[in-house]
Amino acid sequence: MKPLGPIPSGYAAIDGELAVSGHKASTLVAQAGGTPLFVYSRDLLTQRVVALRTAMPKRLAIHYAVKANPFGPLLEHMAGLVDGFDIASGGELAILRSVGIDPARVSFAGPGKRDVELEAAIVAGVTLNLESEGEAARALAIASRLGVRPKLAIRVNPDFDLKGSGMKMGGGAKPFGIDEARVPALARHLIAEGADWRGFHIFAGSQALSADAIVETQAQTLALAARLAEASGAALPKCNLGGGIGIPYFPGDEPVDIAKVGAALADRFADLPDVLKDTRFVIELGRYLVGEAGIYLAQIVDRKESHGETYLVTDGGLHHQLAASGNFGTVVRRNYPSAIATRFGAAVEEEASIVGCLCTPLDRLADKGGFPRAAVGDLVAIFCAGAYGASASPAMFLGQGPAREILV
Amino acid sequence: MKPLGPIPSGYAAIDGELAVSGHKASTLVAQAGGTPLFVYSRDLLTQRVVALRTAMPKRLAIHYAVKANPFGPLLEHMAGLVDGFDIASGGELAILRSVGIDPARVSFAGPGKRDVELEAAIVAGVTLNLESEGEAARALAIASRLGVRPKLAIRVNPDFDLKGSGMKMGGGAKPFGIDEARVPALARHLIAEGADWRGFHIFAGSQALSADAIVETQAQTLALAARLAEASGAALPKCNLGGGIGIPYFPGDEPVDIAKVGAALADRFADLPDVLKDTRFVIELGRYLVGEAGIYLAQIVDRKESHGETYLVTDGGLHHQLAASGNFGTVVRRNYPSAIATRFGAAVEEEASIVGCLCTPLDRLADKGGFPRAAVGDLVAIFCAGAYGASASPAMFLGQGPAREILV
Repeated sequence: MKPLGPIPSGYAAIDGELAVSGHKASTLVAQAGGTPLFVYSRDLLTQRVVALRTAMPKRLAIHYAVKANPFGPLLEHMAGLVDGFDIASGGELAILRSVGIDPARVSFAGPGKRDVELEAAIVAGVTLNLESEGEAARALAIASRLGVRPKLAIRVNPDFDLKGSGMKMGGGAKPFGIDEARVPALARHLIAEGADWRGFHIFAGSQALSADAIVETQAQTLALAARLAEASGAALPKCNLGGGIGIPYFPGDEPVDIAKVGAALADRFADLPDVLKDTRFVIELGRYLVGEAGIYLAQIVDRKESHGETYLVTDGGLHHQLAASGNFGTVVRRNYPSAIATRFGAAVEEEASIVGCLCTPLDRLADKGGFPRAAVGDLVAIFCAGAYGASASPAMFLGQGPAREILV
Repeated sequence: MKPLGPIPSGYAAIDGELAVSGHKASTLVAQAGGTPLFVYSRDLLTQRVVALRTAMPKRLAIHYAVKANPFGPLLEHMAGLVDGFDIASGGELAILRSVGIDPARVSFAGPGKRDVELEAAIVAGVTLNLESEGEAARALAIASRLGVRPKLAIRVNPDFDLKGSGMKMGGGAKPFGIDEARVPALARHLIAEGADWRGFHIFAGSQALSADAIVETQAQTLALAARLAEASGAALPKCNLGGGIGIPYFPGDEPVDIAKVGAALADRFADLPDVLKDTRFVIELGRYLVGEAGIYLAQIVDRKESHGETYLVTDGGLHHQLAASGNFGTVVRRNYPSAIATRFGAAVEEEASIVGCLCTPLDRLADKGGFPRAAVGDLVAIFCAGAYGASASPAMFLGQGPAREILV
């Protein structure tokens, strides 16, 4: 039997069934019209942001990175919780606008911004995190043509990375941001050109579970911001410190000690150099805010044995849960937390693999896990499905189409 | 510099530009309305099927596996070339029907068929490749309720696999098909229940490049089909031998010697046991028929340097080309064949990485390849994009949306 990842806190059983925000899984499926279904919990989203605010210094603004989950009702809920939004495309800007989020609260990072995206962002008053001198020149030219003063920040490619992070975004050659050494010259140029100077975006990595590593990276980030601001010859209006706080997915993973991260950041904020005294600091989080607040429900359509192994074949699969299948940025496949939702909390009775309906051996959601004995019609739940699930999976693969999504 | 995969034959330069079916890349982009763009070549699709028919015994029917590429105009073109279609979902059946393909030419395999999909297939006259005894019982019950005689075949989980295949579909416990030992009893049951008995589907693996391995697997498949037909006590009307013929993607890969495969199969067909004398044999291919007939075109929106490395940042990315980015069933990332389409055939002048527009380090289409020096506005081409590209990638990731597609 292979271990399963840890089920996040906040999920309980009602009448032997997994419940989200007080609603049983089978009720939610009936309400949504069927499976496969992503369910996101308002309560868990709120609790997470409140806990983070409690742990962090008051001075730190919290931004939500839309790329983690762009579901409209979830964005509307987050709008009442966070201080701003970070986007990675013109498409994400359009989604935010469709749910009435003020573009003045939005910043836009991403290495391949097209002219049409730059123009839409500049017109709307979005802050651009510039990724290269070439992009800066295009943005200035577009703003000049439009007669608009653009809100411009520089995305810095830091020389350090976030240790133990699942995705390294710094520390050497990268397609993201501008190498440290070239940042001051560009900042001076932007200010000289009359841009509304918005400061730096410094993102060293994501999905780290070590508080010590995050504390160290934040210290390096603040020191770098101070050095670059001094060299730029201007006070720093804003500094996006990146994100990096991960969530536990796999056996043995432990949640980040955010109290420790917050305390260390408060110490740093109490002792800032003059050039950062009036800077507005931001932490940008996607996965950490929404990942554990979502589950993916699929129904068992077949139960079969092959050479002594049991397969629970579901109507879901990697077309909605690519990362859980181990096929998205993963070298060694490990099990996400999962359960039989309609027998939640029941004792383990057998070893079984939960697979999807796709005709490919890649489509495996849980490999040889321990579960109560499940039958056709039972629901399975994959946890940690709130981030990089629905929108980060190939929904049209094998003619399947997208899953349903609800926020409760 | 890291090597690039081999560019498939059939692509030439016109006026220094990559051309498909005689049309320059830039012309195709203008015609399609922009980038990113998948281009599929009618000529190359036709040439591939003709070459395969020439190499294979006349008796062998050729089926196209829709999962490789379900683009409507491509399916319409394939309808005039192949003998049948294999689908993996009710969604793929709907796509085939929308372009007027007769469901009587279609068979349906897949481990998680829902009741609604079984019913749609039975009503339409599609052959079902049954994946379990449970699915067989559901299919018989649905057919009985509808008063329709179902066309039923059994998908066999063979005890052997296809050596060197990229995806193993046999050889031990699998969620696909029914273990050899249990097949005869189910076949007798289906026949006794009055089903229109359609035989076996035996798929041992895919994406193999060794003719010897494919020859060996086909011999094992025919021997297994004969044993199972004898044990079932009925002549075998049809036998799907699976596919398995791969295409070269990576440096050092060589095309399969299909003449060798065809000659060996002809020898086997000349010496079949009685129980297979009247069997209709089918080979089911997806990637081999369409993979090399497609390219993916993206435009360079930024050219940047970081710590001495050059990045060509495009408006495309892993949201359309997940496999090329190395994030779909790949352990070690290697470069697909790629080129600067608007400087096709020009000498190598620099080392550069081609990346997508997504804000993630996973989004890399070519790593440190050798290219002519490219500028913003140039087009890049990723080859081998005809299979498992558009439909097997997370098009909605980071708010991007699907690529354009054309058949020329």
